[in-house]
Amino acid sequence: MTEKTETTPAWLSPEELESVRGRMPILYIDAVPVRVDDTGVVTRVGLLLRIHSDGTVSRALVSGRVLHHERIRDALMRHLEKDLGPVALPNIPPSPQPFTVAEYFPTPGVTPYHDARQHAVSLAYIVPVAGDCRPRQDALDLVWFTPEEVASPAVQGEMTGGQGVLLKQALAHVGRLV
Amino acid sequence: MTEKTETTPAWLSPEELESVRGRMPILYIDAVPVRVDDTGVVTRVGLLLRIHSDGTVSRALVSGRVLHHERIRDALMRHLEKDLGPVALPNIPPSPQPFTVAEYFPTPGVTPYHDARQHAVSLAYIVPVAGDCRPRQDALDLVWFTPEEVASPAVQGEMTGGQGVLLKQALAHVGRLV
Amino acid sequence: MTEKTETTPAWLSPEELESVRGRMPILYIDAVPVRVDDTGVVTRVGLLLRIHSDGTVSRALVSGRVLHHERIRDALMRHLEKDLGPVALPNIPPSPQPFTVAEYFPTPGVTPYHDARQHAVSLAYIVPVAGDCRPRQDALDLVWFTPEEVASPAVQGEMTGGQGVLLKQALAHVGRLV
Amino acid sequence: MTEKTETTPAWLSPEELESVRGRMPILYIDAVPVRVDDTGVVTRVGLLLRIHSDGTVSRALVSGRVLHHERIRDALMRHLEKDLGPVALPNIPPSPQPFTVAEYFPTPGVTPYHDARQHAVSLAYIVPVAGDCRPRQDALDLVWFTPEEVASPAVQGEMTGGQGVLLKQALAHVGRLV
Repeated sequence: MTEKTETTPAWLSPEELESVRGRMPILYIDAVPVRVDDTGVVTRVGLLLRIHSDGTVSRALVSGRVLHHERIRDALMRHLEKDLGPVALPNIPPSPQPFTVAEYFPTPGVTPYHDARQHAVSLAYIVPVAGDCRPRQDALDLVWFTPEEVASPAVQGEMTGGQGVLLKQALAHVGRLV
Repeated sequence: MTEKTETTPAWLSPEELESVRGRMPILYIDAVPVRVDDTGVVTRVGLLLRIHSDGTVSRALVSGRVLHHERIRDALMRHLEKDLGPVALPNIPPSPQPFTVAEYFPTPGVTPYHDARQHAVSLAYIVPVAGDCRPRQDALDLVWFTPEEVASPAVQGEMTGGQGVLLKQALAHVGRLV
Repeated sequence: MTEKTETTPAWLSPEELESVRGRMPILYIDAVPVRVDDTGVVTRVGLLLRIHSDGTVSRALVSGRVLHHERIRDALMRHLEKDLGPVALPNIPPSPQPFTVAEYFPTPGVTPYHDARQHAVSLAYIVPVAGDCRPRQDALDLVWFTPEEVASPAVQGEMTGGQGVLLKQALAHVGRLV
Repeated sequence: MTEKTETTPAWLSPEELESVRGRMPILYIDAVPVRVDDTGVVTRVGLLLRIHSDGTVSRALVSGRVLHHERIRDALMRHLEKDLGPVALPNIPPSPQPFTVAEYFPTPGVTPYHDARQHAVSLAYIVPVAGDCRPRQDALDLVWFTPEEVASPAVQGEMTGGQGVLLKQALAHVGRLV
């Protein structure tokens, strides 16, 4: 690309990212990993487990930034591989149309989604995963829940930033919210 | 089911179907079989080939009726298996939301879709197919085209009843219509 | 249309419809009437009220059959006008893509939707309504609820056949399910 | 918001935006203004006209950046009002789900969309417009075309950056691409 010079590297430094974060929306993807049966019915939803230093537990979707000059489907692949390992065999949807767009605002209450660090706008996709999932070393585990379980107050209460709501939207989209 | 008696069998006879066809909309599915790459990009579209008795050729999507007490995803599976064989390994989409609804009218011109026999309303889905496709004995072949080829006048001219239009809608939905 | 003769009228008689009902899926539409603010946010959902002979109350979406040779959008208009009156000013969505498809099975439990009379497959749409709603004389009233209210157990408990689930799917689709 | 201090204003300066543009994806919206009939059928598509200093003409969708702490639907309203005037009466869709996502890359050929200045990711919506459109003083005019006209080579040839492709996707989504 011709628009870059030696003095402006292709990637933002951590300080630059921090500075930009408070001043423009940052593009994210959210992926809901699912197991499906032979006819495409969602039978399980995969949630990442994080154990915090204070002993509390939170559960999360696969989520992350889209980088400069990265296609959305490449960002989906990169984050799924990072969180689920190299042999998860995700089936990225053929259509770029997300099932919804989650607008995480730094101010709580503007939308159901909240991110204290930034205004993140996340394109959300349901991704069937056919292979073996091996979360990486960074203290994450992956647990497969039934649709009924992820919609339950117990699991919903372990999700943060509005991802519980996003998950219910995913279930509704696949006809599995009861 | 309790509502059926010996005198009303679960399936319509050919004569009954014929009688009903002219008087109520008949529910169909249309499936667009596609090959995708590792990131979900559609690389090929599969079209069935029919050679007619007069030597003309037409190309068609996988298409057929939804039966009584049959889920849409089971109808998709049944028609895909009938037309592509038992080891095609179709990935039926997790969501029941079709990418569009094609309303085939017996009167030409009401919509872009036409079916002289009946008013058929068809839920249209894009179905990635991972396995080996072996069309059945009834003189059908399956040919894989690039997205550019299926949108070309040559291939569009070999499709009937508005399925060429439906195919372009499918390409548009997956971001492959140029 | 050329396929009809004098002996096969364009519409099914009540007896014929009854006979067909148990033997093929019947095409329906479901419409969720909503009020929106200037930016398109859904602020209210309209539900029809039915008072039954035994004094019980049920609430329902606008719902009905698609007739032969009737476009889906014309069926939407017809049922909305029948249930909300002639000056409701519904904004039928420009796209024929429904937000979901509800498969009402005569056997409970196959899907979340149930209709003891028949196998009905219903294309579901969210329809902003700008005008004045005047439900017709047949003992129906229309009540506007907030999204929070329609998702509450109280209102959900007054809906039948799985329409409560369908309503939550509609709320999820517009980002108003919490 | 607590994360901002006097030294980091809420908005990026032009120099900062320029610096960021080459290094992270910028969030945009694209709106396709349409006229619809009583049943929601798209009858006309509105395109902005730009006359360049060299006398050439280009036609464009309503398009622009999403700002920090701005909801997507507010960005849609702001850009529609800027380009179509204050009495256009746009009906912003109730659902945040875009009909597609256009990834404008600075390198041509990665996707069908291209923007030499930046990597822009644009959420694309179809917006029925009911009121009177009065494009602002900055040399823009608005012309209403039929669906057939906007898909024609003549109009497609006047669109840049892949917006012609995006427009055909919009037509396909509303069932008006032939």
